[in-house]
Order: sequence, then structure tokens, then C-alpha cells
Amino acid sequence: MQNSMMHLPLVIGSLADHVERFHAATEVVSVETTGEVTRTGWGAVIGNARRLASALEMHGVMQGDRCGTIAWNTRRHLEIYFGVSGGGMVCHTLNPRLAAEQLVYIVNDARDRVLFIDRGFVPTIAGLIDQMPTVKMVVMMGARDEALAAQLDGLQFYDELIAQGDAAFQWPQIAETEPSSLCYTSGTTGHPKGVLYTHRSTLLHTLAGNSPDGLALSARDSVMPAVPMFHVNAWGVPYIAAAVGAKLVLPGPKLDGESLARLIAAERVSLALGVPTVWLGLLQGLEATGADVSCLKRAMVGGTALPPSMIAEFRDRYGVDLVHLWGMTETSPLGTVNQLLQKHVALPPEAQAERRLAQGRPPYGVQLRLVDSAGHVLPHDGVTQGELQIRGHWIVDTYYNKDRSALTFDGWFDTGDIATIDPDGYMVIRDRSKDIIKSGGEWISTVELENIAIAHPAVANAAAIAARHPKWDERPVVIVQRHLRMEVSEEEILACYKGKVPNWQIPDRVLFIDNLPLGATGKVVKARLRELYGEVLMPETAEAEPA
Amino acid sequence: MQNSMMHLPLVIGSLADHVERFHAATEVVSVETTGEVTRTGWGAVIGNARRLASALEMHGVMQGDRCGTIAWNTRRHLEIYFGVSGGGMVCHTLNPRLAAEQLVYIVNDARDRVLFIDRGFVPTIAGLIDQMPTVKMVVMMGARDEALAAQLDGLQFYDELIAQGDAAFQWPQIAETEPSSLCYTSGTTGHPKGVLYTHRSTLLHTLAGNSPDGLALSARDSVMPAVPMFHVNAWGVPYIAAAVGAKLVLPGPKLDGESLARLIAAERVSLALGVPTVWLGLLQGLEATGADVSCLKRAMVGGTALPPSMIAEFRDRYGVDLVHLWGMTETSPLGTVNQLLQKHVALPPEAQAERRLAQGRPPYGVQLRLVDSAGHVLPHDGVTQGELQIRGHWIVDTYYNKDRSALTFDGWFDTGDIATIDPDGYMVIRDRSKDIIKSGGEWISTVELENIAIAHPAVANAAAIAARHPKWDERPVVIVQRHLRMEVSEEEILACYKGKVPNWQIPDRVLFIDNLPLGATGKVVKARLRELYGEVLMPETAEAEPA
Ligand SMILES: Nc1ncnc2c1ncn2[C@@H]1O[C@H](COP(=O)(O)O)[C@@H](O)[C@H]1O
Repeated sequence: MQNSMMHLPLVIGSLADHVERFHAATEVVSVETTGEVTRTGWGAVIGNARRLASALEMHGVMQGDRCGTIAWNTRRHLEIYFGVSGGGMVCHTLNPRLAAEQLVYIVNDARDRVLFIDRGFVPTIAGLIDQMPTVKMVVMMGARDEALAAQLDGLQFYDELIAQGDAAFQWPQIAETEPSSLCYTSGTTGHPKGVLYTHRSTLLHTLAGNSPDGLALSARDSVMPAVPMFHVNAWGVPYIAAAVGAKLVLPGPKLDGESLARLIAAERVSLALGVPTVWLGLLQGLEATGADVSCLKRAMVGGTALPPSMIAEFRDRYGVDLVHLWGMTETSPLGTVNQLLQKHVALPPEAQAERRLAQGRPPYGVQLRLVDSAGHVLPHDGVTQGELQIRGHWIVDTYYNKDRSALTFDGWFDTGDIATIDPDGYMVIRDRSKDIIKSGGEWISTVELENIAIAHPAVANAAAIAARHPKWDERPVVIVQRHLRMEVSEEEILACYKGKVPNWQIPDRVLFIDNLPLGATGKVVKARLRELYGEVLMPETAEAEPA
Repeated sequence: MQNSMMHLPLVIGSLADHVERFHAATEVVSVETTGEVTRTGWGAVIGNARRLASALEMHGVMQGDRCGTIAWNTRRHLEIYFGVSGGGMVCHTLNPRLAAEQLVYIVNDARDRVLFIDRGFVPTIAGLIDQMPTVKMVVMMGARDEALAAQLDGLQFYDELIAQGDAAFQWPQIAETEPSSLCYTSGTTGHPKGVLYTHRSTLLHTLAGNSPDGLALSARDSVMPAVPMFHVNAWGVPYIAAAVGAKLVLPGPKLDGESLARLIAAERVSLALGVPTVWLGLLQGLEATGADVSCLKRAMVGGTALPPSMIAEFRDRYGVDLVHLWGMTETSPLGTVNQLLQKHVALPPEAQAERRLAQGRPPYGVQLRLVDSAGHVLPHDGVTQGELQIRGHWIVDTYYNKDRSALTFDGWFDTGDIATIDPDGYMVIRDRSKDIIKSGGEWISTVELENIAIAHPAVANAAAIAARHPKWDERPVVIVQRHLRMEVSEEEILACYKGKVPNWQIPDRVLFIDNLPLGATGKVVKARLRELYGEVLMPETAEAEPA
């Protein structure tokens, strides 16, 4: 091989260099954990990232060492993203809502050497630090605070730490195949598992994921990730924003609708990203605040299926284009984005809206296929359901610390989702394979049942689960959370299903609950619902149902 | 290193796989050299590309072998792009307008094994084939034609060749650092030099170059490269269109304004790309045809500086956004694209228009700097002029077949352009350090023109300069200093060029001067000559010419 073209590594440090060089003055706005709003720029952020990398090096942190974060979306968290990865260490984002036991498990599995934590987590970590022998340094992400210092021996303070570092620090040369960051799956079954992203996988995800049919972020956007920075790197937004020099708005800990509505209006946010629960909250927040969010053109929604009624409401009332994405921790996360093809452009709005319900098409860099339970590849006809498998430049191969590849014998990752794919490549998630309801040997999609219930005006949220059944093995039961002070009966909900699904798919029961149990990333925890209501259709337990 | 993420190579075959899998039905429209319009789809194009790769393999063409093309923008040329590079060979595009001597030089320097040529070039190649010993196979890009077969012994026909191949052929596994395509610079000083693109450089150029601040092509676009496929791979459009599944409209040999206007209207082209001369022609073509080009939203213009009046006319009369790009053969070619920043969005239209005149900002992946003649780095203040140097993932390192890197000691490529860069990264080309003449977007070497004039016995010295021209932007004018007491006329000098350069490179005028202005080191001061004679071809100044 001749060195015909320059060969520069695809590393996160090069993103930092780019945004510092060409977009130093572009704003980074951050709602701090104290509630205060700070206003800085990409130049200052990368300067601090360099200081941090240099200070960590001075403190003996080595390349490849894991630096954990337990933190909300703030400016300091962003600096840690670039400083840690740019400096050749691994940025390991932890979910602050995890139970203590899981937190300890994950820190130990990752062998984190440093922990960066927000103010509020100092007591928790003080109580657990004895169980985390690999952690040599805990850094509170703020200025010195004597009250906090008293709680945890040796606690360091971020602002002091970076003051020791050098803003002109040059990133070390590292190979693009080196790890850059680490994120654990939510581990609904068994222990959580780590996905160790590399610089290369992150950069290719950044470039391909930001194509005009992907996130499509430009230097004219003001982008707000309402998806947490511990949830698959906020879907890659920090890296993408750096690559294009977009204004970044970090909403801090409060993701309620009113806070977000005000922030969107104040910072002229043009693109926001988050899970459906966030958008549901935003609808209410917009109602309550009357905030002018005419600046908001697009919102990207993923994590769970997007209810059709929400797409319509955002479009018709607020002129916001809700774009559906699908992905997972193992896929960095962008697997599909729902954007139209040229042949759809001339379709009437309703037909376009119909198209937009699917989870979307894969960008270059992602391959999808469907297989049956015997592993046979199934057709992409839009009808045949199968297990969704994926391959690509930013898809997991081997979980962190595991010896065995996570892939099928022929190199595909099995997502655990049940999907259809149509001839144009539009993928629709029908269910998680562990959630789908198997009634008398036939499959019933819980997503479809939930969307019908959610479309009822009195319903705030709904979850369909498989309840054990003496005759059919499993039958659908829908658990509904009503809007505050609104009424709706089981019969009224059941009536909604008539004509919308085949009769045999209509749920056997509708039950009401005050609050659906939500997991750390805002998804309904169906396992918990199955514990509570999985037996309601069995004769001997039918009495146990809630009133 | 642990294999934490999948590691798939960045190769052109993967682009072909993607577009075939997800955009098989998306149209590819081609104006053939016969004038006929053919209508096919990406699926069929990639099928033929596979057939071609398989047939070449059967004919003993090996991985790494160079396959030359002398062809216009057509569907078969597109198939050759993907079939040759996907198959692991090197697609070497040649400029059909080259003089015979240069064509022979380049084919021999590249050691092309195969030549794919359009119908019209059979006589030329038949006359030169004896001087091209490495060429084992010449393929006319069409169906069998006995009249052509009679002109060149062993001439093959593309349609017959691919009929022997296998449409299910799987691309060989190749490393991403292997070469994929080859393009020669116009060789302003000395011989033309080859730039050997790799799969990796091409894929990174495809991904980063198509960001929303780059070409921004989506699956809803219909894109027409009016820039030739032999001009730096049509600026990467064939690859980018495949990556996103855009409709591709290939205009064939005729790039006159009327043909383009009709094609844009008929194929609902939304984005077109080309040099300024093409857009000048299009303005006239639109006038002449009255074609409805409301579909055309954007045009990307590069190759020479874009006249401000043209931007305004396209915007105000046709609603087309003319976007300025800068690049060169050595830069794949995208170096900069002119898109606005967020802070410009609220500016009044005139202030925005002012901004849009610059050559643009670099995307992630490109670094720019200015240096003075001593190699000191200069500030990016929008005022200081310096030599423009560039680094990045898709920038040349070493020219084809050369042993020495083309870079500075610290790894930058010197573009030979004189530029300024402002603090936001907007670059403006101020001059060319090498005085090359750009006539209708094509380059004309002054050195070559001078050498021919100087070769005349009555000529003491000669300098070729770019004179402004109302239609072609620039045309060559040669300033001749005769030997004392010797006579030679303008006609006699012009006659020397016949057959030595392509007709379009023959100077428009030859002017005589008593003494060429010489600088301190004995070199002709061309800047002075341009002051004196740079306007002689402009109608209003034509009188000012010397007697
Ligand atoms: N747009 C979506 N629609 C339906 N399910 C989704 C969507 N996005 C993500 N998911 C689910 O979330 C899982 C990934 O979870 P996590 O790794 O925690 O992000 C996927 O396997 C899907 O089951």
C-alpha cells in the first residue's frame, strides 16, 4: 500500500479540535443542578476539556482508564465527554436513577478509577464508596463546597481540578480503534452489560448519523438533548453538535414539560430530542406556560414507540415535525430514522403521516434483517414479522469484559425486537420479543394496543402486557393511567378497539393505575406490571385485581 | 484491543450494497451519447456493476489494476464507477478533452490495463493504441457496433461484456486503505500528476461531505452533476447519491444551457452541481426555453470564483440558492462549502448575500491554515493573505507513482492558492500563486502556452496570462517579446498551437511588447502584465489594446 491519501485517525479529539477552531464563539447553554443558567461557548468548553485531560494525567490517570459520570445534562458533563475521551481515557456514563446495588455492580464491573458526580449524589457515593475499591478519585462537578467535602473523605472539586490543568494541552495520539466511552444496558434480564464504544464507531456514527436523512443538524441549529447524557451518549448529540458547530442547550436535571417549554422558547431551540414521555410532558407544559415555541421545527423521538396521536398534535398545533428514531445502547444508538423518500413527497398529508409512524429506514452504515426462530431470513414485505437483527460500523460486537462475541454465528446482532420491514426499508417495531403476547399461538403486538388506548383523550399513558390465561396461554391486558381529574371506564376503552384490531386481539381487561412504573430512561417497566397483573386472568387469582 | 464494536471496512462496495438493498427502485436517468434518454434504477445499476466486476475478473483483470474511462456522465459510466472500485480495481477517469500527447502520457503513467471509452473516442484511441502498451482491452461503452469494431482491432463492447458477468457477484473483501480511483491534475507545471483516492478517503468524503452544511443530499432529492465524472469524481456526487438513495440525473455530453434547462424541468432536479460557466449557460438556456425549473432549489458551484451577480440573478429570478464550494483534485475535492452560521440567519438578505461570496467554511475532516512565504502560520483575521494549506481525511499525501510525499515537513498540503480566512473560518481565494488560466471551469497551463510560443524562432520570450472574458471567465492571451529585428505576426504564432494543444486552449490573442517586465530573480512579473492586458478581451476595453 502506498500512502496516497493522508491517514488521520477518526478520534474524538479531532471533533474537539474542529469545533474549537471553527466554532469557538458558538453558544453552549447549560441549566446547572443549582437551577442557574450558565452561558459559555464551544471554545471555553474545549479549553476546559483540555485542562481536565491534563489534570487527570497529572493525577496519574492512565490512557484506557474508565472515568465514570453520575450526572445530568450540563456544561461540565460535556467537558468531561471531550476531556476524558480526547485524553485517551474512557468516559463511562452511569444512570443516576439506578438502585444502589446496581450502581455498585456497574462501577465494579467497569473498574472505574474516577467518578465525576453531580452535587446531589455525594451522600449516595459516600455511603457506597467502601464497596467500590477501584475508585481512587471522586470529583464533585462544581466549585469547592466545605459542607460536601465533609461528607466524603478526599472529595475533589471539578473547578479546582481543572484549574490545575493546561488549556493548551494537546490530545495524545491514539488509534481510532481504542475505546472512547462505555454505557451499560438497562439489563432487564440478568446483570447490566457494558457496551464499549470506540473512537472510530463514535466518529462514524457522528458522520453517518447526521446525514440529511438522519439528525440533520447544521451550524444554524440550536439543539437540546432532552435525552440524558447517560442514555447512549444522549444519542450522539454532543459529538454531532461539535462536528457541525451547532448551539447546544443542556437542560440539566429538570425534564418536566414546563421547564423544557420555557427553555426552548428562551434559547430558540430548533431541534430537541427525547423519549415519548418527555414530549407528552412538553405538550402539557406548552399548554400550561403558553410559551412561544415557534422556533422549534423538529423533535426526534425514540426509546419507545411514538403514539400517532402525538405526532398529529405536535404538527397541527405547534408546527413541529416529530421524527421517529429507533436504536439501542448496543447500536450507538442510531439504527433507523423516519424520513420520507422522494416518491412520498407528493402524497397527501395523511398518507405521509401514515408513513411517518414506522420507526424508519437505516442510514448508510446500518444493515437490517428479519429472521424466524430457526434463524431463517424472512422477506422484507412489510407484513412478515421476525426477530430484528442488525450489523454495521457502530454496532456492538462483544460486551465489555466478556470473552464471547454477542453476535450470531454469521455476524449479526440480535436486537430482541420483533419487527417488519417493507420493500423500501421502513422498519416497524411490533414489540420486544419478551413483551409480545402469544395468544393461542398467534402474536399480538402490545405497541398497537397501547397506541389505541393512548389516543383516547382521557388516557395519559397505557401499557399492554401478556397476562397468563388458562385456555390461550396468554391474553392481552391493558393498564391505563388516566389524565389527572379525568374519567374513563373499562368499557369505553374497550370500545375503542372495535374495528381497529381483529376481534381476537381486543384486550380481555383494562385496569387503571395512578402511575405507570417508569424505568431510569423513562420507559414503562413492563416486568413490574407483569408481576402485579400477570395473573389477573387466572381463576384462582382473579380476586387480586385492583379496585 | 478488544473487539468491542463491529469493524467493517469503509469500502465503495458497501455503498453499492446499501443503495441496492434500500433504494433499488429509485431512478437513475441518463442522457446517452446518442442523445437518447434512458431510465433505470439504482438496483439495475448495481446489478450491472456486479456483472462488470465479475466479467473483468473472468478476463483476468486483477485487484489494483487501473481501468481508465474516457467518457461523459452516463449510466454506464456510473456502473463502471461502482463495478471497478467495488471489484477492487481502480477507476481512472480521464478528461476526453486532453490533447493526444497528454492522454498517452497519462495512460502510460497510470499503466491502465483497460480503457472504457464513449462511442466518439474510438477513432482517437485507434490512432493512439500503439503508444499505450499497458492497455490490454478497450471497451466501447455501448452495444456492439460493427462499424466501430472495424476501426479498432479487438474492440470490446460494454453490453456484451457485462452480459458475460454475474449480477449476484459479491464484492471481494478489501482493506479500506486500498486504492479505489485515480484522477490526474491538469499539470500546470510539468507533467500531470495522479491522485490515488482510497476507499477510506472516498467514504469519509462521502459521509462528511454530505453533512447538512455540505452537499446536504437526501432521499428526497433529484441530483444532477453537470460537473463531469472525470473532474474529481463529479465532486463525489455518485457516491453521495448512493449513500442516501437520491435520484441521479446524468446529463451526458451536452452541458449547454438549453439542454440542461430542459433536463432539470423534465426530471424535477432539486440540486445541480457545476462550474460557473455552466450556470452562466443555464441562465441563457432558461431565458431561451422558458423551462419551468421551480423544482431546482439549490446549485453548488465551484472550480472558479462565482460572480456575485449570478448568485443574485438565480436567487431573485428563479429562487435557486447558489452555494459556493472550493476544492481541488488533491482534496477529493470538498475543501469548503459556503453555508451560513446561526448568527447570520437573522441578518438582512444583502448581508447574507455578502457572506455567501466567500468560498466557504471547511466541514469536519478538513483543516486549513495560511502561511507566508517563509512558512510562518498567519492569523485568521479575514484580512491577512497567505498561501492556503490543507490537511484532512481525504487530502492527498503522495502523488501516484512518486516516492516523495507532496506535503510540507509538518504534514500539510500546499494548495498553491492565496487566500484569507476570517475568524469564523470563512475562506476567500484571493489569487492563484501559479497564475493558471481557468477557461469555462477548465484549466489551461500558462507554462505550456509559453513554451510553444517560445519555440518559434522569432520569439525571445513569452508570457501567457488570464485575460477576463465575458463568456468563459478567463481566456489565454500571450504576450510576446520578439527577438531584435525579427518579425512574426499574431497569425503565425497562433498557427503554432494547432495540434499541440486542444483547440479550446489556443490563446485568443497574441500581443507584442518590447520588453517583458522582469522581477528581481529574472522572472516575468505576471501581475504587471495582467494590469496592462487583463482586460483586452472585454468589449468595453478592447480599444485599449496596444497597437
Ligand atoms: N422508536 C422506538 N420504538 C419502539 N421501541 C423502541 C424505539 N426506540 C427504542 N426502542 C426500544 O428500546 C430498546 C433499546 O433500549 P436501550 O438500549 O435502553 O436504549 C430497543 O431494543 C427497542 O425495544
